[in-house]
Amino acid sequence: MAVRAAVAGASGYAGGELLRLLLAHPETEIGTLTGHTNAGQRLGAIQPHLLPLADRVLAETTPEALAGHDVVFLALPHGQSAAVAERLGPDVLVIDMGADFRLKDPADWETFYGSPHAGTWPYGLPELPGARAALEGAKRIAVPGCYPTAVSLALYPAYAAGLAAPEAVIVAASGTSGAGKAPKPHLLGSEVMGSMSPYGVGGGHRHTPEMIQNLSAAAGERVAVSFTPTLAPMPRGILATCSAAAADGVTADSVRAAYEKAYADEPFVHLLPEGRWPATASVHGSNAVQLQVAYDAAVGRIIAISAIDNLTKGTAGGAVQSMNIALGLPETTGLSTIGVAP
Amino acid sequence: MAVRAAVAGASGYAGGELLRLLLAHPETEIGTLTGHTNAGQRLGAIQPHLLPLADRVLAETTPEALAGHDVVFLALPHGQSAAVAERLGPDVLVIDMGADFRLKDPADWETFYGSPHAGTWPYGLPELPGARAALEGAKRIAVPGCYPTAVSLALYPAYAAGLAAPEAVIVAASGTSGAGKAPKPHLLGSEVMGSMSPYGVGGGHRHTPEMIQNLSAAAGERVAVSFTPTLAPMPRGILATCSAAAADGVTADSVRAAYEKAYADEPFVHLLPEGRWPATASVHGSNAVQLQVAYDAAVGRIIAISAIDNLTKGTAGGAVQSMNIALGLPETTGLSTIGVAP
Amino acid sequence: MAVRAAVAGASGYAGGELLRLLLAHPETEIGTLTGHTNAGQRLGAIQPHLLPLADRVLAETTPEALAGHDVVFLALPHGQSAAVAERLGPDVLVIDMGADFRLKDPADWETFYGSPHAGTWPYGLPELPGARAALEGAKRIAVPGCYPTAVSLALYPAYAAGLAAPEAVIVAASGTSGAGKAPKPHLLGSEVMGSMSPYGVGGGHRHTPEMIQNLSAAAGERVAVSFTPTLAPMPRGILATCSAAAADGVTADSVRAAYEKAYADEPFVHLLPEGRWPATASVHGSNAVQLQVAYDAAVGRIIAISAIDNLTKGTAGGAVQSMNIALGLPETTGLSTIGVAP
Amino acid sequence: MAVRAAVAGASGYAGGELLRLLLAHPETEIGTLTGHTNAGQRLGAIQPHLLPLADRVLAETTPEALAGHDVVFLALPHGQSAAVAERLGPDVLVIDMGADFRLKDPADWETFYGSPHAGTWPYGLPELPGARAALEGAKRIAVPGCYPTAVSLALYPAYAAGLAAPEAVIVAASGTSGAGKAPKPHLLGSEVMGSMSPYGVGGGHRHTPEMIQNLSAAAGERVAVSFTPTLAPMPRGILATCSAAAADGVTADSVRAAYEKAYADEPFVHLLPEGRWPATASVHGSNAVQLQVAYDAAVGRIIAISAIDNLTKGTAGGAVQSMNIALGLPETTGLSTIGVAP
Repeated sequence: MAVRAAVAGASGYAGGELLRLLLAHPETEIGTLTGHTNAGQRLGAIQPHLLPLADRVLAETTPEALAGHDVVFLALPHGQSAAVAERLGPDVLVIDMGADFRLKDPADWETFYGSPHAGTWPYGLPELPGARAALEGAKRIAVPGCYPTAVSLALYPAYAAGLAAPEAVIVAASGTSGAGKAPKPHLLGSEVMGSMSPYGVGGGHRHTPEMIQNLSAAAGERVAVSFTPTLAPMPRGILATCSAAAADGVTADSVRAAYEKAYADEPFVHLLPEGRWPATASVHGSNAVQLQVAYDAAVGRIIAISAIDNLTKGTAGGAVQSMNIALGLPETTGLSTIGVAP
Repeated sequence: MAVRAAVAGASGYAGGELLRLLLAHPETEIGTLTGHTNAGQRLGAIQPHLLPLADRVLAETTPEALAGHDVVFLALPHGQSAAVAERLGPDVLVIDMGADFRLKDPADWETFYGSPHAGTWPYGLPELPGARAALEGAKRIAVPGCYPTAVSLALYPAYAAGLAAPEAVIVAASGTSGAGKAPKPHLLGSEVMGSMSPYGVGGGHRHTPEMIQNLSAAAGERVAVSFTPTLAPMPRGILATCSAAAADGVTADSVRAAYEKAYADEPFVHLLPEGRWPATASVHGSNAVQLQVAYDAAVGRIIAISAIDNLTKGTAGGAVQSMNIALGLPETTGLSTIGVAP
Repeated sequence: MAVRAAVAGASGYAGGELLRLLLAHPETEIGTLTGHTNAGQRLGAIQPHLLPLADRVLAETTPEALAGHDVVFLALPHGQSAAVAERLGPDVLVIDMGADFRLKDPADWETFYGSPHAGTWPYGLPELPGARAALEGAKRIAVPGCYPTAVSLALYPAYAAGLAAPEAVIVAASGTSGAGKAPKPHLLGSEVMGSMSPYGVGGGHRHTPEMIQNLSAAAGERVAVSFTPTLAPMPRGILATCSAAAADGVTADSVRAAYEKAYADEPFVHLLPEGRWPATASVHGSNAVQLQVAYDAAVGRIIAISAIDNLTKGTAGGAVQSMNIALGLPETTGLSTIGVAP
Repeated sequence: MAVRAAVAGASGYAGGELLRLLLAHPETEIGTLTGHTNAGQRLGAIQPHLLPLADRVLAETTPEALAGHDVVFLALPHGQSAAVAERLGPDVLVIDMGADFRLKDPADWETFYGSPHAGTWPYGLPELPGARAALEGAKRIAVPGCYPTAVSLALYPAYAAGLAAPEAVIVAASGTSGAGKAPKPHLLGSEVMGSMSPYGVGGGHRHTPEMIQNLSAAAGERVAVSFTPTLAPMPRGILATCSAAAADGVTADSVRAAYEKAYADEPFVHLLPEGRWPATASVHGSNAVQLQVAYDAAVGRIIAISAIDNLTKGTAGGAVQSMNIALGLPETTGLSTIGVAP
């Protein structure tokens, strides 16, 4: 019997990607789709790439519209998920693709979002130690942010193995879909094509505390994170360049061994052969993480670089992967490690 | 029992896209992969987006390497397919993604390719009148060119319904993957990003006689084609803007009716609702054709515009669709009408 | 003594490009800059590429603010120029970069713009027959639209020489800056990168009557124009692919001769050597028009393709060129035929 | 009397950009242009954006062809400049845009280039302490690498003021023109559009010792540099994200004060107003450096980010700026701080 799934916020990029994946998922059936300003419109006018759903009409995002599903995915502006989730009942699997339930420390939430903390749900990054177990049978899941997904998977093995000092420096480039579909002048094609630019520099990006949370858990001590996101002239993809000073005695071999061990059995994380480096094009539309790690002996730093698709593994693919675990389906159901390249 | 498929020319863009599709095809098993200059290399080094095949090693393109398969796909430079096909035996399904067997008139071949004509195989554009029947049970299939796919599907209904004068004017924009993977200075990213440029202007492009062949068959008379291809700053996609003078008595309604009728039952061709126009992003990685048609009364012309992915419906997807028909599988097996957007 | 120039609408793309050119113009001094929603802001926050003007503050667009200049450039939404121009006095050179004064036939204006016609000013495309003379000493100038600039220069020599039938088919690709800076969802980088799409198909684009006006004047009879604009994934540039049936007796030589004659003395129009075709990258940021023409004997059509920068020759460069003529300065003052490539 | 300039290596991207700038330089006259594989060809076929030079023919790169000029610019593959320079005589100003004479330590050269060290010439980054004086009247100039230009200007003020620990972490994104015009598969448009990828990770990039040299000179002690270059989907531009741990007592104010002081009188370096960050589009085609610096108190790091055009300030513009100084011309002659945006 098919899992019946609703999507609240089906007109944005995260919602659209989720629908793309659910259409290919053999165990789900797509139920209600909701929107806000686009309620009442055909999906074909908003997500013209989703041909099989072209004639679906978006409902308003209300608890009534979302009732009667096994799974409800929330792709809403932050701060709105709690109210919706409360009304859905404890037996419905609610998967929040927004930020509301990711952070454990209420103070972090309040500092970065300026509103009361809604709570903490099981964290949908199954590759982290202990995360998979917490997702099994869960009824509430917080999907990680796109940057924290790329960064945590790039660096956690080094921290878990005690190889890196607790000060990480991260510079990540993201495609523009990470900034959403709301039209803003600096996101116009005329502005972004041919241009690289940073934003949220100096610790201000809201994904920073989430990275600290993940890396600190792996390290067993607080990891300071210097995070600089940049906007790249491409629609999708994150390339996260992460480094940290190596602990005493670290060698290139010990670093590689730690990563090989961490990802030996992970279906979506691919440690590249030595000497090869990831490119975001290779994971375009895929749930794979391609990564590589090196030890730069001249400066004593470990450098780990990961490539993900911000909309797939970074958002909607991570959500589906977590749903699979929560529902007891094979984790890879409906998900692919094959990129659409070139 | 799985259909065992070999791919000759697995290191190029057409071969890579074919492998992407075959990996998702539930009835095929991927056998031998061959290359030429890349023989002996891991596929992971050449097509890093195809993670499940990363450890496959490319063989030399020889009849021996290709023997023992149910289907052999040829993605070879033109002029090489006949010799390979001859050695494969009449019971093997051979699908040529190159140009060698597309044209019926040897004189056309010789004019545009300057070598002796190899022959004509059933033509793998099932949406054309009569084409599907010729593909059922076929053991040899010529996959259409990418531009002829986009153009023929945009214009044939107008010609089949007697609505258009036999002089078509076509300007098409293609992504750079259509030009292949051989490194040439004018295909460098530095050259193509931010630039539109025409090529093969004035009737010189080799896809021209193929368009004439298809449109003339639909019209029942020779259709002259003015074809101007342009290179667009994107990796994939073709947007074909096609027009012809309307016959006497044509109206907007009669044009639309002809297209609705032609494509009512086609699983991959989507005539958009009136007033909406296609974008190549919507068919990125998909086997769909999105198209629209209008009648410009002020100039008395029918204008039909189609968007396809040149590598999918334009090459590898068309090949798989034709394979499905030839083998008696449901035509849509393993193929999608969902684009990877944005 | 420097020519003092004001710019109304300095925060948009046309205004920004004009300022870029005026900064390099040896005879002008930049006076008042105005904006609407951005009035009161530093120009550095809006046009960060114009470093020498970073500390300028935008005034409101009022007659008072624009008074006291020798030249006033208007880069305003259509329908607003007449009211401003009236208040500036007859001795001030007013150059309208909008559409208000381009069309001669009030009926055309009303059909395409739905408002009363404001009038007709001397037309700022000096390369057209008779246009230069009308600009000398003019106090009011209507700068052509970007598409009509590219199309008229590509086709007028064929019409002026009686070589082409009065039915032109034009497909043009434009960079996204042609659509302006107002944020709209379909102009987001996420939407336009990797995508080609048509718009205003079937005769609806407002630049169509302007092309008809120019080509008809050259032909001495009404020329019907089928015009399809497409949006290309690049910030700047127009590639206009234009064709028309050739008149009887036309040869490749007679076509080339007509173009060579038309442009022999034009400083900004460059007819490429035979066999070479234009690319928009070659005119990026330049006032040059690069073009080529061919005769396709198989279909009896003349094909002319031009590349311009829509913001430079297509808007602000054309405005400066016309200003130079009106003021009696050398026509090329402050303008370049050198593109910024790659 | 005009300065007569020759360019050896006029068919590449560095050579083309230099010619673009020299065409706009009021004191230079362009003499001999040479190429290697392109010798004998018209420049119009190779650099079609340089219309005024379209009919120039490339000579072979020989001392004879380069004789008789006041300035000779060398844009040659590394290792070839010394032999050419030797033959030009001590009174000719020779400006090497390659790497041969940048490094002071022969061991660095040998480690990174694997050949004997040719020597060290005055270093053409006038903004560095003492550099301008060494360039005045110089007859030999080594133009800095593009990455070292962006990185040294971003970080040297922090080191010169004693504000930063001697371990810098740098992640820079470069447009593809930085990789040159030789066609290689990974530089194809199909590969680079839509993709970010790192290269030369772990200290292997040849620009690393040059950065160390510059920053160490500013710091008065050896600065270790972790440098990761990435390839971005754009033709031009470098965005360098640079950080280092702050020294004790550093504040946001002390950091800003150091940068304001360092660049108060620099015509090409623009420290943005607080809160604004640079974008490469803003310096497209310009000799400007736009930069910003912040102090991230949470992690105790100084973060400085610069944007340059790799071909202009990063190569050819830097060369012209240095030429101006060497010849006693005003330093900004022929150079602009205005970008071509959008």
